Amino acid sequence: MARVLTPQAEDFPRWYQDVVAKAELAEPGPVRGSQVIRPVGYAIWERMVAEMDARIKAAGAENASFPLLIPESYLRREAEHVEGFSPELAVVTIGGGKQLDEPVVIRPTSETVIGEFMAKWVQSYRDLPLLLNQWCNVLRWEMRTRLFLRSAEFLWQEGHTAHATEADARAYARKILHETYEDFMVNVLAIPVTVGLKTTRERFAGATRTYTLEAMMRDGKALQMGTSHELGQNFAKAFEIDYLSAEGKQEHCWTTSWGSSTRMIGGLIMCHGDDNGLRVPPRLAPTQVQVTLVKDGSGVLDAAANLRDALKEAGLRVGYDARVDIPFGRRAVNAELRGYPIRVEVGPRDLAAGNVTLVRRVDGSKSPVALTDATATILAALDSDQKALYDEAVARKEQHTEDVKTLDNAIEAAGSGIARVPWAKVGVAGETKANAVGVTVRCLTRADGSVPDSEDEKGLIAHLARSY
Amino acid sequence: MARVLTPQAEDFPRWYQDVVAKAELAEPGPVRGSQVIRPVGYAIWERMVAEMDARIKAAGAENASFPLLIPESYLRREAEHVEGFSPELAVVTIGGGKQLDEPVVIRPTSETVIGEFMAKWVQSYRDLPLLLNQWCNVLRWEMRTRLFLRSAEFLWQEGHTAHATEADARAYARKILHETYEDFMVNVLAIPVTVGLKTTRERFAGATRTYTLEAMMRDGKALQMGTSHELGQNFAKAFEIDYLSAEGKQEHCWTTSWGSSTRMIGGLIMCHGDDNGLRVPPRLAPTQVQVTLVKDGSGVLDAAANLRDALKEAGLRVGYDARVDIPFGRRAVNAELRGYPIRVEVGPRDLAAGNVTLVRRVDGSKSPVALTDATATILAALDSDQKALYDEAVARKEQHTEDVKTLDNAIEAAGSGIARVPWAKVGVAGETKANAVGVTVRCLTRADGSVPDSEDEKGLIAHLARSY
Repeated sequence: MARVLTPQAEDFPRWYQDVVAKAELAEPGPVRGSQVIRPVGYAIWERMVAEMDARIKAAGAENASFPLLIPESYLRREAEHVEGFSPELAVVTIGGGKQLDEPVVIRPTSETVIGEFMAKWVQSYRDLPLLLNQWCNVLRWEMRTRLFLRSAEFLWQEGHTAHATEADARAYARKILHETYEDFMVNVLAIPVTVGLKTTRERFAGATRTYTLEAMMRDGKALQMGTSHELGQNFAKAFEIDYLSAEGKQEHCWTTSWGSSTRMIGGLIMCHGDDNGLRVPPRLAPTQVQVTLVKDGSGVLDAAANLRDALKEAGLRVGYDARVDIPFGRRAVNAELRGYPIRVEVGPRDLAAGNVTLVRRVDGSKSPVALTDATATILAALDSDQKALYDEAVARKEQHTEDVKTLDNAIEAAGSGIARVPWAKVGVAGETKANAVGVTVRCLTRADGSVPDSEDEKGLIAHLARSY
Repeated sequence: MARVLTPQAEDFPRWYQDVVAKAELAEPGPVRGSQVIRPVGYAIWERMVAEMDARIKAAGAENASFPLLIPESYLRREAEHVEGFSPELAVVTIGGGKQLDEPVVIRPTSETVIGEFMAKWVQSYRDLPLLLNQWCNVLRWEMRTRLFLRSAEFLWQEGHTAHATEADARAYARKILHETYEDFMVNVLAIPVTVGLKTTRERFAGATRTYTLEAMMRDGKALQMGTSHELGQNFAKAFEIDYLSAEGKQEHCWTTSWGSSTRMIGGLIMCHGDDNGLRVPPRLAPTQVQVTLVKDGSGVLDAAANLRDALKEAGLRVGYDARVDIPFGRRAVNAELRGYPIRVEVGPRDLAAGNVTLVRRVDGSKSPVALTDATATILAALDSDQKALYDEAVARKEQHTEDVKTLDNAIEAAGSGIARVPWAKVGVAGETKANAVGVTVRCLTRADGSVPDSEDEKGLIAHLARSY
């Protein structure tokens, strides 16, 4: 087979670009930093949305839609927030042919505008908690952009909630962190994540605490897959999100926000992809099984169509490729590129023996299966391959994680993976030193791996890495 | 009961505003013409998206995502298109703190940017048809805005396809018109629509033909619920969407586009709503049955929870209201406002007799049903009420439609409904005269109700009305 992709070992960033282009996932748009997500890539996003949305609803949040355009003045109401986002804003100055009196910005995130409405909707403790989410596009004028990973415009969900107490807000931010994000990433994306607390330097502009989920890519770099923030009373004070307590006192709410985006598609590619292309975990895959006609022949079309229908009947998402006028090799390469978990090849020779050929994307194995056993075998193979992808990712993550005792060793180890070092050995000064050489503190955890409430807790572990 | 809404007969526009506010469907956003769609309204949109998306995929189109921001120069490439949309553009002139070299506009629709990419993706006749769709937000700087009906930013789907021949393009534009839009509107929204061709004056900027679906609201005005356009070779020429034919000749494609939006929520409200609020057709309703505890009592909580579970088991979308600390009357008014098709009231008195009370939103009937029969009775009632809403809307539309013979009579009849008049009696001059008094030609049909290919066909009927 001709080489389709630059091998990962040769040039990982180039490999990534090749996969995104050759698997027809996305392309750069005409305006700097914009992207076109093509049907193959968008089908993956639709599956992510479906799985995440079910978990978000299970956590009690309701979907809504807030405006794209936000008055500039809203952003200024929260000092850290405006400082964090100002450099990245796209500003609309002309509307309907006229210069606007007050410029408006395209939302970089929606804490401010949603805060304004929460203030209207929350009156008493009975209205709390208020649990909202929206699926939308946001825009941050980025200088260095990269498809899926860092684009000016991206698609995401942003959750925004208001609570009566700090404890309630914290519990909810952590519920989303674990039950929605971690559960989805581990059990659907098959990506192990380190879940921890961001340092003060790395936290969201306007938050009091930022929790994060960090995955490791195949090149040893970290990728932030999602974040959940406690916003304290910062936005509640700025936007007067107040409530009358059961005791009849006027109180400020405690709010949270949490987001995950199309960036996860980049993480999926770089965590599981190999030199032949994407490998999509079966539970996520828009196409779990691709039924492929090798070539035409007696009974082949019927057998393939019947198998397709039987697999659909079994509840699977099935693709069907009967384009026998296109060379089989090319179709096989495309199937590998797109990472369909299983390809079933139906051809006259196998069929004469009552068989079809199962090609499994995860381990590349190819084996004949009796047509009568095909559905059961495929169901078992999908389960097993979901687990295999996860186990492989866990093993790689462990292999590239090193426990060290000093900052210098941590910076060195972060050259090829994650360095775990006592946070006491890093501190704010150490963080500055690491940043200077392109290494960041991805998060802090307790020694037992649990998520701390504060970076001041004793005995915390800092996880240092280079990152996307 | 206290009057919650302005009666329709007193002030229809005020009634509409009241419903939107009191049922908590939407609110105006902070920037002129923007809107916040609240969870109750957004749940309706999610159901519309689910039903429409399934039909769009069944028609073979694939979802994708194209950028929000479009270079101004793209719009200029198609003369009619830029002329139609220029007055409504929002222009971004500053990005990342700097004045942009070329201003970019927020998409008012995406023919241009999608045309640019179609040109890259289509090479040969084998790549055709190319069938794309996206669910996204668009923005048109409107002067007079109204929630759902006419907002600057709105949510919609826009389909864009490229074909080898004009016949293929036309067949597809009509397939979407009938099999996707009309089928959804009639069978899910329970809204009868007149399907026809727009006049040259009313067609989409850049189209060669615009097909439309026009519904009648309860005040006798028309509402355009969706449109499907043949774009001829206009965009194919402007963006060089060309293909190599089977005969080896370089040819321009024929393209289509088609859209439907959150405006349909406005149509839903104004077609079915009554003085007590929304009435949502069962097939659309996010909550088909609301199980409501009247008050606590022996066995009430268990009976209600069991009924809820049984209804869910039967495949229904079920809401559950056990907030017995809120006065029952207030909860009942809210349920009416939101238009849940069926409310099941579970209370101690009924329950002692083995009954619950079924309240049907469509006809307002209230009747006891044996708990053991409840699920079967509810399933039958939902089917019957879906049909009842549709039949009622058909009857009202017929009642407010008048066949007339002259333009003057048509303009007069359009004061309170739809006037059907021979197109030969209207023509371009008649259209100008009607427009001057706020009446428009909503569409043209053949005498048998079918959709013509051209406004020059003999014997066409013009449908005149006032409209939203």
